[in-house]
Amino acid sequence: MPKAVFHYFPVKALGEPVRLLLAYGGQEFEDDRIPSDKWPEYKPKTPFGQMPVLELNGKVYAQSIATSRYLGRKYGLAGADIEEDFLIDQYVDFLNDIRAKAATVHYEPDAALKAKKHEENAKNLYPVLLGKLDDIIRKNNGHLVAGKLTWGDFVFAGMYDYLKAMLQSPDLDTKYPSFKKLQDTVLSLPKVREYVAAAPPTEL
Amino acid sequence: MPKAVFHYFPVKALGEPVRLLLAYGGQEFEDDRIPSDKWPEYKPKTPFGQMPVLELNGKVYAQSIATSRYLGRKYGLAGADIEEDFLIDQYVDFLNDIRAKAATVHYEPDAALKAKKHEENAKNLYPVLLGKLDDIIRKNNGHLVAGKLTWGDFVFAGMYDYLKAMLQSPDLDTKYPSFKKLQDTVLSLPKVREYVAAAPPTEL
Repeated sequence: MPKAVFHYFPVKALGEPVRLLLAYGGQEFEDDRIPSDKWPEYKPKTPFGQMPVLELNGKVYAQSIATSRYLGRKYGLAGADIEEDFLIDQYVDFLNDIRAKAATVHYEPDAALKAKKHEENAKNLYPVLLGKLDDIIRKNNGHLVAGKLTWGDFVFAGMYDYLKAMLQSPDLDTKYPSFKKLQDTVLSLPKVREYVAAAPPTEL
Repeated sequence: MPKAVFHYFPVKALGEPVRLLLAYGGQEFEDDRIPSDKWPEYKPKTPFGQMPVLELNGKVYAQSIATSRYLGRKYGLAGADIEEDFLIDQYVDFLNDIRAKAATVHYEPDAALKAKKHEENAKNLYPVLLGKLDDIIRKNNGHLVAGKLTWGDFVFAGMYDYLKAMLQSPDLDTKYPSFKKLQDTVLSLPKVREYVAAAPPTEL
């Protein structure tokens, strides 16, 4: 088994899709969880000053979605053709857009402005976007694309807890049962379940 | 020739990579430039409430990078294998990260805060990121990846004028000559040049 090391903060967030994919692929890896106070020391060694970073077979992979796509293709989780591949990419980018929009509000340092923006988004923006996402999953038999398991489902499953936190919406599981169900579908795959059971629990 | 319609605002910005790729692929298309005052009318008809949107062969493609990747694969502009494809994806996401970080500042409504954030980024962040991007292009023979033309180069070339505006850095051409050179490489490809010569000039 070739050596793999995965470097990320001690949270799921943007790194968990890669961890879940490595587990699914049967790729043993050193799960290097770098706490915030050690990050400045490692940062200059990363390709773009960001994590996650995956070392695999002597190569370095950065950018979480690009890395997830790569592992997905490697482990037989891509689409059947460029049309299905496009749909995975499109829905993953849509999901990531929602996450990024919510993160901008979540990380707003001005508390009053944060509350105001969250109220606006929670009323006018999030229901529209999440409704579309829910539609997509329900129309695809509980998956993101083509009614079957793809690496896009791993991005969703890995990022979902973080998405809930960014959206400041702890009731997302009950509002959109398709979301939690898709996460469960991925997390209950045998090798993924083993990884999750052994991983340190984290909120995000 | 199958019918194609491309819907976007009357700017280059995030839509131009797709326009350049369609031109390169010899795909005739209706270039539907929707002014801001007509956008609310079209918005609900789009898959995610966003543009660009491409209609091609009876299908609808949204999300600009996913669409660019799709057209790139269709027109022979992908990598030779999943390793090269990964590198294209990684560098395109890095480029898009720079664009997104700069856009957050550019669209900041509070003028004093905008000036402060821009000053910080222009001093501490942009030089690091743009230096990395410049390195990548110089190491790849004037391209993003593998020393050859890929769809990643089209994303760069299409987005470059917008990137300059977001970075509030009109002197980018002289600071990093590799950037302007890569844009010129793409824009001087015969079919692309024809499109550019006929397209309405826009600043962004």
